[in-house]
Order: sequence, then C-alpha cells, then structure tokens
Amino acid sequence: MTLSKVTLTEKETTALRECAHVMADAARAAILPLFRSGLASDNKDAGGFDPVTEADRAAELAMREVLADMRPLDGILGEEFGEQDGTSGLQWVLDPIDGTRGFISGTPTWGVLVSVRDKTGPIYGMIDQPYIGERFEGGFGHAAMSGPLGARALGTKTTNNLAEATILTTFPEVGVKADAVGFQAVAARCKLTRYGMDCYGYALLAAGQVDLVVEAGLSAYDIQAPIAVIEAAGGIVTDWRGGPAHEGGRALAAANVEIHAQALAILAKH
Amino acid sequence: MTLSKVTLTEKETTALRECAHVMADAARAAILPLFRSGLASDNKDAGGFDPVTEADRAAELAMREVLADMRPLDGILGEEFGEQDGTSGLQWVLDPIDGTRGFISGTPTWGVLVSVRDKTGPIYGMIDQPYIGERFEGGFGHAAMSGPLGARALGTKTTNNLAEATILTTFPEVGVKADAVGFQAVAARCKLTRYGMDCYGYALLAAGQVDLVVEAGLSAYDIQAPIAVIEAAGGIVTDWRGGPAHEGGRALAAANVEIHAQALAILAKH
Repeated sequence: MTLSKVTLTEKETTALRECAHVMADAARAAILPLFRSGLASDNKDAGGFDPVTEADRAAELAMREVLADMRPLDGILGEEFGEQDGTSGLQWVLDPIDGTRGFISGTPTWGVLVSVRDKTGPIYGMIDQPYIGERFEGGFGHAAMSGPLGARALGTKTTNNLAEATILTTFPEVGVKADAVGFQAVAARCKLTRYGMDCYGYALLAAGQVDLVVEAGLSAYDIQAPIAVIEAAGGIVTDWRGGPAHEGGRALAAANVEIHAQALAILAKH
Repeated sequence: MTLSKVTLTEKETTALRECAHVMADAARAAILPLFRSGLASDNKDAGGFDPVTEADRAAELAMREVLADMRPLDGILGEEFGEQDGTSGLQWVLDPIDGTRGFISGTPTWGVLVSVRDKTGPIYGMIDQPYIGERFEGGFGHAAMSGPLGARALGTKTTNNLAEATILTTFPEVGVKADAVGFQAVAARCKLTRYGMDCYGYALLAAGQVDLVVEAGLSAYDIQAPIAVIEAAGGIVTDWRGGPAHEGGRALAAANVEIHAQALAILAKH
C-alpha cells in the first residue's frame, strides 16, 4: 500500500466528507433489508444463506462502487475484500458491519465503520448505526452526530478520576487471558462497567456518555474510524503501552488525557 | 392490593391497550429531553440534578396522570411511587426506566415497561424504547412491534438445541455468586453469549432474535411486562425452578418449551 503524508485543502476535505456520507448511505441501504431477516431456526438456512455475511459483503461492495465513482485514485482496505492500491497517498479503511455477533443477535450496537488514513494514521472517521439512524463523524475540524434527536456536536467527558468513570468493553473475556486481567484491573477502579456495545461504545465515548472503552484483539479496520471520531471529539486512543493503536491489537480509548493516564498506568503492567 | 381473576370483553381489552399506548407516549415525552442530557463531568451536577432520577419520576407521574384520567378504578404498582389500590381487580405495573445504568451510559437498551395484571399474573405488557422509537406489545391476542423498519408481528425462535442458542444477560455477575454460576453453566452450553441489553434483551427474544434471557435479582416491575410480551410471542418465562416468575427474583425466559426445558434442567441444580 502506497501511503504518504497528505496535506488537504478545505475543498478536498469537504469532498472526502461528502463521499463518506454517500458511502454510509449506500451501506445502510444494502444492510437494513437483511437486519433481523434471519430464519427463526438458525442464521443460515438450508441453502447456506447467511444474512450477516450477505449484508457484510453487499455493504462493502456498495461502498467500493461509490469510491470507484467518486475517489478512483484513493486506496482501499476493506474487511471483506482486502486491499486495493491507489495513487493519492490516501487509503479508505472500511468495516461494513463491525459487531457481527451483535448483528445476528438483533442488537442495535453494530455499525458501519468508514475512515480515511494517510501515512500518519486515520485523519477522518465515521461510525454509522443504520437501524437507529445515527451517524457519528470526526475529523477535518468536524465532530458531530445526527440521530433520532437531531444533530449535535460531539464532545468527550471531563471526568478526571477513575473512581467516577464508566468503562465499556464488548465481552468480559476481552481477548486472551492477559487482556481480561488487564481490563478487570482497570474496571475494578471504575464506578460502572458495562458490556456488549460493539463499536457503539466508541460512539458513546465521543458523545460524552462514557469515559473509557478498553478492548483487545482488534484489526486495523475495527479501530481506525473510532480513533478519528474520538480524537476529533477531544478524546485520546492508544494501545496499552501508550503507542499508536491504529494498526489494531489492544486499544485504550479515553475521554481525556487525565483519565487516559490513570487507565494506562494500570494497563501498562499487563 | 385487591386483585381478582378478571374476564374482559374485546372492547375492554382494546381500551386497556389504547391506554397503554397513551401511557408509553407520555413516558417518551417525559424522558427523551433528559436522555444524554447529563453534564459531562458527572451524572449529578453541583445542585444535585440527576437526569435519570428526574426522568424516572417524571415518566411515572406522566403515566399515573393518564391512568387517573382513563382508568381511575385500576390499581397501580410503580417502581418510583409504590402502590395505589384499585377496585377493578386489575393492577398496572410500571417501570418508567428499566435499565438506569444503561440510561446513564447513553446506551439505547433501557426501556419503559408497562403491564397489566390480574390475580393470575400479567395479562398484557409493553416494552418501549423511546430513543430508537421501538415498541413491543403482547397480550389480548396481540404480539407486535413497531420501529424504524415499520410494524411487524412478534414470534419467538424455534431453536430446539442449546448448542445452537444465543443467550443474553445484562451483566456477567448476574446477581449473587450462585446466580452467576447457574447462568454460566447454561451459557457454556450455548453457541453465543451476549451481555448488556437490559430489558431490550426480552424484546429481542420476543422478536425472534435470541433464544434465552437469564437474569436474577429482579423486581416484579422488571419482569411482568417482559413475561406478557414474550408469552404472547410464543415464548415461556419461569423462575429457575419452573414456577411463576412474575413476582421477581430469578427469571428464565425462553423462545419455546424445548429450549426452556434444556436450560431449566441446568438451572434447577443452582
């Protein structure tokens, strides 16, 4: 993949943002007819039809069609169809359905993740929840959401003490055993621990609803959009050693530098 | 509380259902302005304002006003304002915000629970999720939902084997230690375990998305509406010994009698 550090004009960032909205709209249209459409007895019918796999692939193809039309020079990394090289120095990183286990359980916590990176890492991201009709966007000087209650600016919490913090992760096992131990060491110091939110947890952090999201075993396409949205909203995302998290692995997403430092001091031992 | 076994005409059940919809609408209007409205630093501001407590009380008062107007002879049991006697033999059981920890974390998994019981137990129930705009209703021959994708009939899954089942509970501790051990014994036999859904998990069971919800430490107002909705949709809800669950405590909600029997055989040992 050919990436470079890219300097963008406002006209160019506007075009990138517009493209992301068109892509997320296309993904919504591809996915929603398949959400909660599974046969009652199983997720696959006798003919092998698997709604989440179908939706995943259809949504990524729909987004790639938008890119072929609007951004033919950009590279692409997608969860379903891999990498496609580009010449602009930019790469779109796509996860058409993040949270497939949430999807097959009918929960509204999965999302469509769209982001743009250059050589330095993610510079723009979007977390879209098609069923609720919520969209969280961050980068290029914007940090905003739209949803059932209208449009709002995103901004992270100012909690500066773990004892007052709410922490999220998707499942209590977190990852391998050391990951669970590290997560639980932080959670034990927090006020409230909640599970099960998939990528929606990162959106809640950007929207000022929770203080920490700690996960492990991530791929690059799971975390790049959340990083861009959270950083634009005032938060910080690193790995469990304080380094970059955008290639995947372990992630510590925090509402601000103070709460990040307190959680990192614990996670760094694990 | 004066309850009797009540026989209702279709005109009477229609009136009860209409009243429930008016109540849920009133609760939505009371709650939504307070959802995600907390100050960034804490759930209570310096003046002691606590959005979830305010929303809880405002919603129950709004529902009690509707009842005073439309159903003055029925009794009421509400989470916030306790019991009010009636003379009709019927009692409305209300939880204005089930899942307050989900509410203060900004998740869309809390709900408004409205139900009607007679001496035999819950005969009608509603689970309403105001933010998503979803409403699940069951009883008097109806089992239906409305939401972002329109109106649909409710119907539970036909999974007849734990190895193919999805099981939900809200948090991995479940309740006291024996509750967690019982839950984990069932979950270990299931295909997929998910956490964090509050009362939304029961709605997903009624909507044919998951097979089992197992919880403990419940109050009567937490479980009566889910029981009515799930039973109307074809499912079954008991305690962990196979007896009635509508007074609270431990609940085993299952999509059908086969999967219920398999889970009960395990839980009965705990």
